[in-house]
Amino acid sequence: MSRISYIENMEDWAASFTFTHEVKVRFSETDMFGHLNNTVPFTYFEEARIEYFKSLGFMQDWVHDESGAIPVVADLQCDFLQQMFFNDKVLIQVKAAKIGNSSADIHYLGKKEDGSICLTGRGTVVQINKATGKPLVWTEEMKQLMDKQNPVRK
Amino acid sequence: MSRISYIENMEDWAASFTFTHEVKVRFSETDMFGHLNNTVPFTYFEEARIEYFKSLGFMQDWVHDESGAIPVVADLQCDFLQQMFFNDKVLIQVKAAKIGNSSADIHYLGKKEDGSICLTGRGTVVQINKATGKPLVWTEEMKQLMDKQNPVRK
Amino acid sequence: MSRISYIENMEDWAASFTFTHEVKVRFSETDMFGHLNNTVPFTYFEEARIEYFKSLGFMQDWVHDESGAIPVVADLQCDFLQQMFFNDKVLIQVKAAKIGNSSADIHYLGKKEDGSICLTGRGTVVQINKATGKPLVWTEEMKQLMDKQNPVRK
Amino acid sequence: MSRISYIENMEDWAASFTFTHEVKVRFSETDMFGHLNNTVPFTYFEEARIEYFKSLGFMQDWVHDESGAIPVVADLQCDFLQQMFFNDKVLIQVKAAKIGNSSADIHYLGKKEDGSICLTGRGTVVQINKATGKPLVWTEEMKQLMDKQNPVRK
Repeated sequence: MSRISYIENMEDWAASFTFTHEVKVRFSETDMFGHLNNTVPFTYFEEARIEYFKSLGFMQDWVHDESGAIPVVADLQCDFLQQMFFNDKVLIQVKAAKIGNSSADIHYLGKKEDGSICLTGRGTVVQINKATGKPLVWTEEMKQLMDKQNPVRK
Repeated sequence: MSRISYIENMEDWAASFTFTHEVKVRFSETDMFGHLNNTVPFTYFEEARIEYFKSLGFMQDWVHDESGAIPVVADLQCDFLQQMFFNDKVLIQVKAAKIGNSSADIHYLGKKEDGSICLTGRGTVVQINKATGKPLVWTEEMKQLMDKQNPVRK
Repeated sequence: MSRISYIENMEDWAASFTFTHEVKVRFSETDMFGHLNNTVPFTYFEEARIEYFKSLGFMQDWVHDESGAIPVVADLQCDFLQQMFFNDKVLIQVKAAKIGNSSADIHYLGKKEDGSICLTGRGTVVQINKATGKPLVWTEEMKQLMDKQNPVRK
Repeated sequence: MSRISYIENMEDWAASFTFTHEVKVRFSETDMFGHLNNTVPFTYFEEARIEYFKSLGFMQDWVHDESGAIPVVADLQCDFLQQMFFNDKVLIQVKAAKIGNSSADIHYLGKKEDGSICLTGRGTVVQINKATGKPLVWTEEMKQLMDKQNPVRK
């Protein structure tokens, strides 16, 4: 049991990620309380999510494609389990926990070097047509690629 | 009914705020998709929350007090209902929706100049002792001050 | 005499600004040394420069015009004369110190509420054609508008 | 000859760096003009400067030392020679071009993956006593360490 609504069992949940991206806390990302400012992990989530989508081959299309498809974030949330400090290495893990027609529920896990969890998070990403703003359904290939990265789902 | 878990009825919820802080979308806060980057509203929430706490007289203590009390954000979330663009004025409204012993559930509402809602959000703020990291209970005065700002609670 | 290469006489220089834009140091802009992080004033310069150009009527064209003209920053520098802290109000003043064919040398002055100078800066802005990347000459009207804001130049 | 005041000969200058730190342009660091926002390279300079000082063993003292010595940036400047875009890898090189009693003139060079120069910069770093704000002279060891990293100076 977990007090975090999107995590049923923390151990199982944490074990279900396969994609990892490392970030390092910049000096400019700290604040006068001496720790990482709490607005910054959302930047880490974005960076890790993009690396995840790049690893699936999606990002190239979204940035350069003529189809005009882009991903937008519909909602985003973060639970701060531990403070982070200047120079900390943080491993951000990413997975697609649920895949809809044109959206996906993306989960995030942040670990310190000692393996302890400092961040958890989730948020909905929707693929839209940039010109019309309307949702664009995932292709079957896209769905399979997101699914493949997630061993628990099989 | 609302699809957002922390909002029961959007109209009632939106009408329940009394504190407002205005921000304006900076050029440097846009991204290559041409709109406000989705990591930035968390900065707006922080700025507005601090102005809210300042209006209650809390911030002065937290920054300068010898007691070593500081507020930390335990979790934070945002729903992006509308895109925002460079130069948009956004009114960020803040209230304490629930007040615990040493924590408070802070709600956020972002409105464009035309009155339409572009952002909603919430997050738990906990008052802790900076040195020990342990929760510090609110004084009765603090609770009353947070409560007074919230007309629906009465 | 001034130790800063782009300022001949600090008093005269400081008196020559007519455009002012106010910013306030955000909590998220401080760092673990307890003061405003030194990368942030460049954001203030950008914000104030854009407000300055908006006051001249330039920005509207740059963001929406079909001509494809955009301003780019060719170089930027800042001298940090005093530390700034959370919640400080800083008045950022802007002027076009020199106007070239397609570029302008923009100067910046940052003052605290007590009138003391905390920041000085300068940088070249060039108007280019976004598609070709080539410089685009200012119209006579643009030159006159920039010149009018600068009383010392007459 | 170079149009940039702190660079006498670009080729010689560019060849004189030995310390390199790699950064990658984040999506959140782009702006609506589609490229890296010009306020961001100062963050890259800070990150690379800190990695440079860490490589010399200085940073540990500055962050944790009881002596209360901290480095502050007295001035900082950047010349933007080429646009940078989302996902670009940029190699930031750092050296101490001149070493004073308690300050150093730090130079910066940014290169794209193809070896072309996209950024140059410089700025004065001063070691001060955090409590008094007064300059603190470098130890002989510190001077030698900064000097060793700079092959042209010998």
